[in-house]
Parts: sequence; C-alpha cells; structure tokens
Amino acid sequence: MEDESERPIGSFEGSPPIGILRRPLRCIVKLGGAAVTCKHEVEKINEEDLGRVSSHLRQAMMGCGPVTEVLGMDWSRGAGAAGIDSISDFNEYAIPNLESLIIVHGAGSFGHFQASKSGVHKGGLHVPIVKAGFVATRISVTSLSLAIVRALAREGIPAVGMPPFACGWSTTERNVASADIYQITQTLNAGLVPVLHGDAVLDNQQGCTILSGDVIIRHLTQQLRPEYVVFLTDVLGVYDRPPANPKAVLLREIAVEDDGRWSVMSPLIQQATGEGVEITVAAHDTTGGMETKISEAAAIARLGIDVFITKAGTDHSLRALRGELLGASVDDWLGTAIRPAQRPLR
Amino acid sequence: MEDESERPIGSFEGSPPIGILRRPLRCIVKLGGAAVTCKHEVEKINEEDLGRVSSHLRQAMMGCGPVTEVLGMDWSRGAGAAGIDSISDFNEYAIPNLESLIIVHGAGSFGHFQASKSGVHKGGLHVPIVKAGFVATRISVTSLSLAIVRALAREGIPAVGMPPFACGWSTTERNVASADIYQITQTLNAGLVPVLHGDAVLDNQQGCTILSGDVIIRHLTQQLRPEYVVFLTDVLGVYDRPPANPKAVLLREIAVEDDGRWSVMSPLIQQATGEGVEITVAAHDTTGGMETKISEAAAIARLGIDVFITKAGTDHSLRALRGELLGASVDDWLGTAIRPAQRPLR
Repeated sequence: MEDESERPIGSFEGSPPIGILRRPLRCIVKLGGAAVTCKHEVEKINEEDLGRVSSHLRQAMMGCGPVTEVLGMDWSRGAGAAGIDSISDFNEYAIPNLESLIIVHGAGSFGHFQASKSGVHKGGLHVPIVKAGFVATRISVTSLSLAIVRALAREGIPAVGMPPFACGWSTTERNVASADIYQITQTLNAGLVPVLHGDAVLDNQQGCTILSGDVIIRHLTQQLRPEYVVFLTDVLGVYDRPPANPKAVLLREIAVEDDGRWSVMSPLIQQATGEGVEITVAAHDTTGGMETKISEAAAIARLGIDVFITKAGTDHSLRALRGELLGASVDDWLGTAIRPAQRPLR
Repeated sequence: MEDESERPIGSFEGSPPIGILRRPLRCIVKLGGAAVTCKHEVEKINEEDLGRVSSHLRQAMMGCGPVTEVLGMDWSRGAGAAGIDSISDFNEYAIPNLESLIIVHGAGSFGHFQASKSGVHKGGLHVPIVKAGFVATRISVTSLSLAIVRALAREGIPAVGMPPFACGWSTTERNVASADIYQITQTLNAGLVPVLHGDAVLDNQQGCTILSGDVIIRHLTQQLRPEYVVFLTDVLGVYDRPPANPKAVLLREIAVEDDGRWSVMSPLIQQATGEGVEITVAAHDTTGGMETKISEAAAIARLGIDVFITKAGTDHSLRALRGELLGASVDDWLGTAIRPAQRPLR
C-alpha cells in the first residue's frame, strides 16, 4: 500500500469524486458485532450493551453528560419514551453540536450463519444456495443495522443507515474495488452520522463475497482521514494469546513503522521471553478475528492515525471515544493503542 | 422534459455511467404503500395483502403457478417455514429463471407521520426538528422496506434493499439531481431484484426533502427502459372522481401524446358530459396522490412504455404483471392502462 499521508482530505484521486468535507472528520468508530449481540444465540441483540454504547457515543460526540435529556429521533411505534408523544415540545431544546463521526458495525450473531451456511464469501452468485444465502445474509445484517440506527437515534444521534451493498461498495478478489464515498461526504456535511456495516457485496471476480467492517474502516480511513479510530469490542483489547488463557497478557501499546511492521512497546514481556504473539480467531468469524483486526489497525496507524481497541461500555472506551488519549500516555488506560512510530506533522 | 425515447438502453448521458444491462429490463413495479399497509393504523403492515402480492410477483416473474414449492431466502429467526431448518435440502431444487425486475414501494402508513410532523419535505436540515424528523422518517420507511424484502425473499424472489438515500439519490428543487443507477444495473445483472422506496433524501437547494416512489419510478424508467410498468394500488385504478363517490367511473384506457397531453379513450362518458376528471388526493399523502400518479404515468407512456394501474392481489394485477396486456386489448381487464397514443417501433 502506498503512503497516502500527504494527500489532503477530500481531494480527488482519479475518479470518482469523493467530495470535500466541510469540517475534518473527528472519528470513525467500529462497533464490534460481539459487543452488542448475544454471542451464543442467533440474531439476538444485547439491548443493554447496545444502549450503553449508544449513550457513550452521545456523551463523547456531543460533549454532554450521562444524564443529559436527549432528543430522541426514533419516532416509531414501540420506541418508548422517544416515541410519538414526546415530539410536541421538541423545539424547546437545541441539539448539542455533534462531532463529525462515522459508525461501522460488525455482524455478531447476525448474518454469520446465513453466510457460512451458503458460502457467500466464496462467491458463485449463479448457484441457487449462494444467491439465497446472499439475500438471507443481507436481510439479517440489515435488520441488525436498523436496530443499531434506532438505538443511536433514541440517544439523539442523527444516525442514517448506509448499507455498503446499496451504496455501491464492491470488491475485486475481496479488496475494495468501488465505494460511494461522495454520498458519505455529503451525509457528514449535512450533520448526519453514516452507519455502515459488514455486508454481502458483489465481487468482480467471484460474483459475490462478504465485505467485513474492518476492511470498510480501512478504506474509509484512507479516503477521509479521521483524527482517530476506535474499535469497540467485547474484550479489553488485543492479547498476546486467547484471552481465556490464564497466561494471556493485554498488549497496551503497539508502534507501527512506515513500512507497516509493528512491535509491542508495552508491556515488554513478549520481547523478553522471545515468544511471538499468538493471535485469537473466533471459530464462527468468517471475516477474520483479532489477526485481521491487528493488521487492519496497523494499516490505519501507518497513515499517521491513532487506533484504540477497547472494551465497549467501559470508562476506558468513553475516554478513547472522547479523544482524550490522542498523543497522550496510555499508562492509566486499559486497552490497546496502535499508533504510528513516527507521527507525521498534523 | 425532453424526448428521450431514442436513447439506447444503458448508454452514457454525460456522467456518471449507468452501466450496461445484460438483458432488457422486463418490468418496474410500484407497490403502493396503501396496498400493503393498514391505512388507519400507524406503522402496521397488512401481512396478508403483502403475502398475496409477493406470491403474485413470484408467479408472474418466475412463470410458475400459485402452489409451486418455493425456495425461501429469508433465513432469519421467526421466518417460519422458510427459516433455518429448510435449508438442508436446498440444493435439490433449481431456482426458476427470473425476469429482470425492479420493485419500488411507497410508504403507506410508515414515514408519513414522521415526515409531515417535522416538515422534512419543506427542507431545513439544520433545524433540530427537521433533522430529527429526517432520521425518524428514514427509520420508519426502512423498517417497512425490510419487511417487504423479507416477504419477497420468503417467496423465493432474490430481493435486495437499496434505500435511495443510501444509494446517493439526491434532488435539486425536488427533482432528481443524482442517483446511483450503475449499482442498480449491476444488481440486475447479478440476477437480483432491487427494492427501492420513497425516502427522505438530501436536496441541494433546501437541504432535504421527501423523494416519492413515483418520481423514482419515472427516473428509473427514463434510464433503464423497462418493457412495461405496473402500479399496484388499493383501488381498481384511476377514477374520474373519488372512488367513494357513487358516480365515480373507472378510467380504463388513457392515451398519451408525444407532447405529454393525455385523453381518456375508454370509457367515453367524460367527454360526452364535458366534465373534467376530478383527481383524488389522500389527505395524509405528503407526496401527492392520484394527480401525481396520473402525470407520472403519462410521463412514462411518453417514452413509449405501457403503464398499468391495477388493484394489488387481484387476477387483474396478475395479468398486468405477467405482461399479458402488452399491446393487447384491455376490454376484459379491470384497471387503468396508460399508453402512448402512437407507439414507437420497439
């Protein structure tokens, strides 16, 4: 991958145009599927965790406290306090200024079953079961996405769903071949929060595949240069071996060189023992687990952008979302910071 | 509007490219919101009507009978017989060849409340209540769209949701300014059925507006030239006055001149009495009712394309969907056929 760190935000690079951001993009947040769904039950949302994450996003991006009265934007039936009855006194509030933000979420227990059962990631859209699996996967992940958009809207975050398949994201040999960045730019300029997700998409070579949230994030980061990126997961961060292993050590800080090589700066025990980092990959994850995550994060850090991997719903994640850790020590923070070894001038 | 009838399918007209269709587009179907939702209850789907319409679409577009065993493509929890358990013997069937088809649906009792309460159609996205209404409208219409995609998938139709906002549809003074036709072309070429809908979109002049399904259909028709267009509604067709009026007469056949003027060919009573056609507009419809429908249909017929307005779920609609009425007499058919007065060579 070429070094793109000198390219100005929103410039054209060949076609198509990606548009000009009216203000810098503050943050791209990856909301891990495992952080908001129930791992061991197909298509079940963890409403409590999703609510807590949505509240944190509001606090961090609107600069307001946990108990601030919010202006719910989900006026659907069954949306509770944020429903239809609450709208009459809406104009009496002002919406706090919202930082420019993109949210990308994973699939968790949505979509994986449908995708793996039919082999959507292996392509072959002309095969009946693959075509059916493609449709079934999209139904499953878009239903999760709608639930996440609604949870964000209930917290007053002006979230709008932008499913990658519909937005023209396609791949060639599973790398991003096209993506409608222009519409994302326009959406950000309108003061709205785009919500994307891992999705079944068309592939120029094999017909179709699964585009993971992590690959989406890397592409968006290259194109739109956020100040920082936060991965919200269901564990504290990246460990040197599976977190269930009693010997597992949380990697606190990873430095990424210009050429993409990375090394663990803190803690220093790995280097001392000579043991390599054993990467955890969940068996049900068709799009790669921690190994993908760490290499995707390193690719982002190479662009000069800090990446924070942290447990969703904790104070640590709230600090990361607020940007408190930008250029700061992470000694008193639990999570994994993946940063450029030599930070370019911003 | 200029006459575009000579432009070949899939040609470029300035930028952006719209792609080349590998086979002609058979039909664009407008699924009226009122035909599949409960008129007098907010956000309630009429599951029975929706199921019947989906079955008709399958019969018409796959050329199979009403009781053919179908390969369900909704593998979500709670999808009944089409659910997870049915997949194991999936490969034993072949999916019948599907005609090339686009479905556009209205909002019915979804979205209208949110849009009209906040004035999304009047613009002003910087105003808190408009921004909230924009988000709330999109949540409501995308939840209806997901339900429709699922109903189609249960009938074995490989439907994929393509929300216009996400696909980069935008307007200038409420006319279509941009739309990602290329992704729709690619989706059709992949043998999938794009499902679009009336949506809240960005507007270059006033910030935002409501883009109606009827305007979407006209744009798609101009760009992709289907063989015919079918509007499925909750009444038999277009009447000369509100259908509740005992004097109301169903307009059977309307001829559209090259310059867009139209006249009722059958029945002939209107001309005899000298009374004009009194157009019905439902009070809750923020995007125009029959008046919009008839002028949109006339604009399509000007392109040399037959338009059939018919009651969803009836044998009349099934005949229209099958294309049986193309270039044929409609004397034994109940509905409104809107056709070019001088059909160009096809």
